[in-house]
Amino acid sequence: MDIATVIGLVAAFGLVVWGIMLGGSLSQFWDAPSAAIVVGGTVAVLLICFPLAKVMGLFKILQKTLFATPQDPSAVIEKMVRYAERARREGMLALEEESEEEPDAFLRKGLRLAVDGTDPQLLEKILETDIGQIESRHKGGKSILDAGGTFAPAFGMIGTLIGLVNMLAALEDPSSIGAGMATALITTFYGAVLANAVFLPLSSKLEVRSAEEILVKEMIIDGIMAIQSGDSPRIVEEKLKSFLSPTQRQLVEDGKQQAA
Amino acid sequence: MDIATVIGLVAAFGLVVWGIMLGGSLSQFWDAPSAAIVVGGTVAVLLICFPLAKVMGLFKILQKTLFATPQDPSAVIEKMVRYAERARREGMLALEEESEEEPDAFLRKGLRLAVDGTDPQLLEKILETDIGQIESRHKGGKSILDAGGTFAPAFGMIGTLIGLVNMLAALEDPSSIGAGMATALITTFYGAVLANAVFLPLSSKLEVRSAEEILVKEMIIDGIMAIQSGDSPRIVEEKLKSFLSPTQRQLVEDGKQQAA
Amino acid sequence: MDIATVIGLVAAFGLVVWGIMLGGSLSQFWDAPSAAIVVGGTVAVLLICFPLAKVMGLFKILQKTLFATPQDPSAVIEKMVRYAERARREGMLALEEESEEEPDAFLRKGLRLAVDGTDPQLLEKILETDIGQIESRHKGGKSILDAGGTFAPAFGMIGTLIGLVNMLAALEDPSSIGAGMATALITTFYGAVLANAVFLPLSSKLEVRSAEEILVKEMIIDGIMAIQSGDSPRIVEEKLKSFLSPTQRQLVEDGKQQAA
Amino acid sequence: MDIATVIGLVAAFGLVVWGIMLGGSLSQFWDAPSAAIVVGGTVAVLLICFPLAKVMGLFKILQKTLFATPQDPSAVIEKMVRYAERARREGMLALEEESEEEPDAFLRKGLRLAVDGTDPQLLEKILETDIGQIESRHKGGKSILDAGGTFAPAFGMIGTLIGLVNMLAALEDPSSIGAGMATALITTFYGAVLANAVFLPLSSKLEVRSAEEILVKEMIIDGIMAIQSGDSPRIVEEKLKSFLSPTQRQLVEDGKQQAA
Amino acid sequence: MDIATVIGLVAAFGLVVWGIMLGGSLSQFWDAPSAAIVVGGTVAVLLICFPLAKVMGLFKILQKTLFATPQDPSAVIEKMVRYAERARREGMLALEEESEEEPDAFLRKGLRLAVDGTDPQLLEKILETDIGQIESRHKGGKSILDAGGTFAPAFGMIGTLIGLVNMLAALEDPSSIGAGMATALITTFYGAVLANAVFLPLSSKLEVRSAEEILVKEMIIDGIMAIQSGDSPRIVEEKLKSFLSPTQRQLVEDGKQQAA
Repeated sequence: MDIATVIGLVAAFGLVVWGIMLGGSLSQFWDAPSAAIVVGGTVAVLLICFPLAKVMGLFKILQKTLFATPQDPSAVIEKMVRYAERARREGMLALEEESEEEPDAFLRKGLRLAVDGTDPQLLEKILETDIGQIESRHKGGKSILDAGGTFAPAFGMIGTLIGLVNMLAALEDPSSIGAGMATALITTFYGAVLANAVFLPLSSKLEVRSAEEILVKEMIIDGIMAIQSGDSPRIVEEKLKSFLSPTQRQLVEDGKQQAA
Repeated sequence: MDIATVIGLVAAFGLVVWGIMLGGSLSQFWDAPSAAIVVGGTVAVLLICFPLAKVMGLFKILQKTLFATPQDPSAVIEKMVRYAERARREGMLALEEESEEEPDAFLRKGLRLAVDGTDPQLLEKILETDIGQIESRHKGGKSILDAGGTFAPAFGMIGTLIGLVNMLAALEDPSSIGAGMATALITTFYGAVLANAVFLPLSSKLEVRSAEEILVKEMIIDGIMAIQSGDSPRIVEEKLKSFLSPTQRQLVEDGKQQAA
Repeated sequence: MDIATVIGLVAAFGLVVWGIMLGGSLSQFWDAPSAAIVVGGTVAVLLICFPLAKVMGLFKILQKTLFATPQDPSAVIEKMVRYAERARREGMLALEEESEEEPDAFLRKGLRLAVDGTDPQLLEKILETDIGQIESRHKGGKSILDAGGTFAPAFGMIGTLIGLVNMLAALEDPSSIGAGMATALITTFYGAVLANAVFLPLSSKLEVRSAEEILVKEMIIDGIMAIQSGDSPRIVEEKLKSFLSPTQRQLVEDGKQQAA
Repeated sequence: MDIATVIGLVAAFGLVVWGIMLGGSLSQFWDAPSAAIVVGGTVAVLLICFPLAKVMGLFKILQKTLFATPQDPSAVIEKMVRYAERARREGMLALEEESEEEPDAFLRKGLRLAVDGTDPQLLEKILETDIGQIESRHKGGKSILDAGGTFAPAFGMIGTLIGLVNMLAALEDPSSIGAGMATALITTFYGAVLANAVFLPLSSKLEVRSAEEILVKEMIIDGIMAIQSGDSPRIVEEKLKSFLSPTQRQLVEDGKQQAA
Repeated sequence: MDIATVIGLVAAFGLVVWGIMLGGSLSQFWDAPSAAIVVGGTVAVLLICFPLAKVMGLFKILQKTLFATPQDPSAVIEKMVRYAERARREGMLALEEESEEEPDAFLRKGLRLAVDGTDPQLLEKILETDIGQIESRHKGGKSILDAGGTFAPAFGMIGTLIGLVNMLAALEDPSSIGAGMATALITTFYGAVLANAVFLPLSSKLEVRSAEEILVKEMIIDGIMAIQSGDSPRIVEEKLKSFLSPTQRQLVEDGKQQAA
């Protein structure tokens, strides 16, 4: 679970709610028709922008990339080294049963292809194609979030224009100006919060997480190919550690010394 | 028919109309001169921006890409496999009558060229040139929609400035401020709705649909060339399935099992 | 004459004038000092931005690309085929007198070089250099128009700020607020109209026309080189038609059948 | 210590404080809840945008690149020439003790690798990888600062909208309009100052400093490799001076003449 | 002296001053604290953005590129042809004394290197490195001007927010609203004028002039190398004239005929 995303969302909305309650009541800021115009209008426009299936798929992408625990690269290295040791001792076929119990679908598929004796080049191409598909799915999700970040404030402004025109046209009662104006501004407020506390930040996090997920998958491909070519566990580890930053590399080594 | 575009357009305009009627009457938001300034001004500027023929061609492009049913890639694969089977059994010439009944103009042209024994390289070049023309037509259409998304709000603002100056110059009657301001804001409202619920979302959908249409046409070229070179139906299918995402590939296989 | 540009400019200004007269009088929108600040300020800034000679050259570029009739590619093909026929029948030298009567300066230069027996590679280089010069001149013109589209609204805002400060500082007479505000907004109005109905659309049209003009010139180079290398009129036609879109190609063929 | 950054920050904030005190009191501009919404909201959104570790690492990056004294390239050249002289006279092993006392960690690592007789290509690859890591860390820091520059004004606007709606809804007491509006605008003010006097300028300085730091590190790599390959001190100096601008080169030469 | 820059600056500021005096007095627009906040704040932020030395160097760059007379390419060609003639007649060494009297430092350096018999490739590399340094200095200057164009309006807005909050907090005296608001807007006015009449246009001119200066220097390199390789004056002229546009080429030829 990506704890920073949750903390950030709770803190951002908490601060906004707290700011509201300092100077007024929360009920002044809840207006169902305004919410319907901004949220509904943004969703409607996203349906014009993108095919239905892609908009529906956004939640699945967000769930997978933001709320699933990202794989720890050092844990993946450890696992690959263990597989390399077993393959060295008992041969590739010994990995067959391991591959069935492996929880990560991508690694499982790679192991099975390796155990089946798939040609290394073909194996690499198949797994790279899978990564390409994942990457393009993430980019599609990011472009939907970015469009949300553009159209939510636009519908906020459209809602405010509707409120202003209605208020101005009924200006006979000057005492109602304040209330009318307040309601009119609420859609702008909704649009600004939606864009700046939801759509745009999630788009940024999706990009970062996608890069991390793809890095781990690239590590897995390199690891499987090293195991298949009969590299020693030591060399498999060296190869995979070149993917890590110095800090991460330090962590892996500390972990090993602790274990030793 | 692209159902999401229709749903999105209906929902976006429905929400706007509903939002208007909650706090006032629809007639307050209908002002023919304002509509003439924003819509007419945007069209006039598009004529300065682009040659007449390209602006006129926009509707045809939109009709073809947004409201025509996009070709289902798996149906195309099925069809190509059937052609490959027939070509294998009865020779390329057997495809001559098929090619006359083929509803898709691009595939029909490709089949006819293949049946005529056109040199594979020339065949590929001719069909790729056709794709290039389609792509450049789509890009032209997208740039017109994007310009509309820029100039509609600009003319909305110009209309509002006209209304404000007229209202302020006649400020002797303070009771008319509200109504004058309301009318002045209506052009801004029109410009914002036109840009954010029509021009920019249609531009985005046009881009997505264009990419899909071109992918199917690339598949057709690869398929015809595979058939011409005498590939077995099985290999034709494998080649074309590499264009699909894993989900789509699953759908094709499920369809085959069902058929079996 | 580019009829769409004229229609668009007339329609855009006509709509603005009509919109003004619906709610007030045109004289309210004419303020010579405001026009001087916006138009004069924009021109002054363009002189800081670009060398004097380039700003002076803008009108010539606009006149040549926007108000000159663009060459019809199919008419150019017809002409090149006629030259190819004559060169085939009577030899290259027969084109000498033709080249003197050719109205298009670029084609005339090319023919003369070909008649003089210039080495094909040199001929191509000389003509390509000429195209490069034209292209860079057009790009320079476009960047001036784009700068105009940026600085006209900026000077509109500066003018409005001047008007607002003057009005606010003399607020003792509250009845003058309306008129002062109206005058202040007129510079914003001028800046918005200049940018959105003149500078930016002309920049877009200049880009499109420049691409068309260069395409025709590329066709002429290919045609002259084909004639010089002794290609048959039929092959010259085929080579040049590959520059056309399918619709244009159809038009050329229809024209030939009609002539037949 | 980067003196310009400190002067700039002090001057920018000093001018703002001075501007405030000219026309009012500083206490009017201090509003703890407003600060909480803008600063807290921006930090919260940065946590949604980026992984926790990267946001936490920003201060360390800023401290290292902005407040640490950048290495003087001419001092580095002098030092490398001294090492080259010693290596020439007494052999590479003589650098072993030097490398232990070298204060710069990057140069120390490079010297130790050279003394250990590491293969030149491997030595270069190891050090280039370290530079790559530093560069990507700096880019990560810059993207956080840029996001701060985007979201701080956005939360300023959200805070102002909250204040406006609260004020307008309680419009019964017209005498409170001024104060309510003043408070509402304070968040916009905080957002503008944070973005334009902190986030965006620091992002720009980080970029410049990062380029300088990496240039020095590239010089060090070239220098170590020249020393390892046995180049004379004179050639080492010539090679490293090609990294300098003419002004810097002049300074190095002036320094040498003074020393002579 | 770049006359267009001077005319443009004088005209832009003249128009602004004239616009001010039409509707009020100039003294209303002069507010020393406002100027201090906008100009001082912008300079302060530029010091945070860029190293001190680069900000200090901006004026020297502007003076050299904007207010120095740009070299006339045709005069440079004439001079190079004269050198070529002398070198042909009396040998390279005859250029030694010429090189000492040559006013242009870049050409002088090139001649001296050629006279010294420097290897052509080395000569080219040395002079190209000098051009690279000039280009990067110009780019650095342009990025400072662009930052000024961004931060001047930002500090204008910050100043206006300070003024508004001060005014609104002291709203007890309604008669002071106008004057307070007027003062508040003056910083926005300063920021807009600074950005749109100084920073951004100078940045554009710097870019154009830099390209021209570098073109002349490239011509000089080509010319020196042609002279060194013993090309005839006629060929030197032809080579250098390929850098010119057709209009410039015409001017050179007209000049020669006049001289003849």
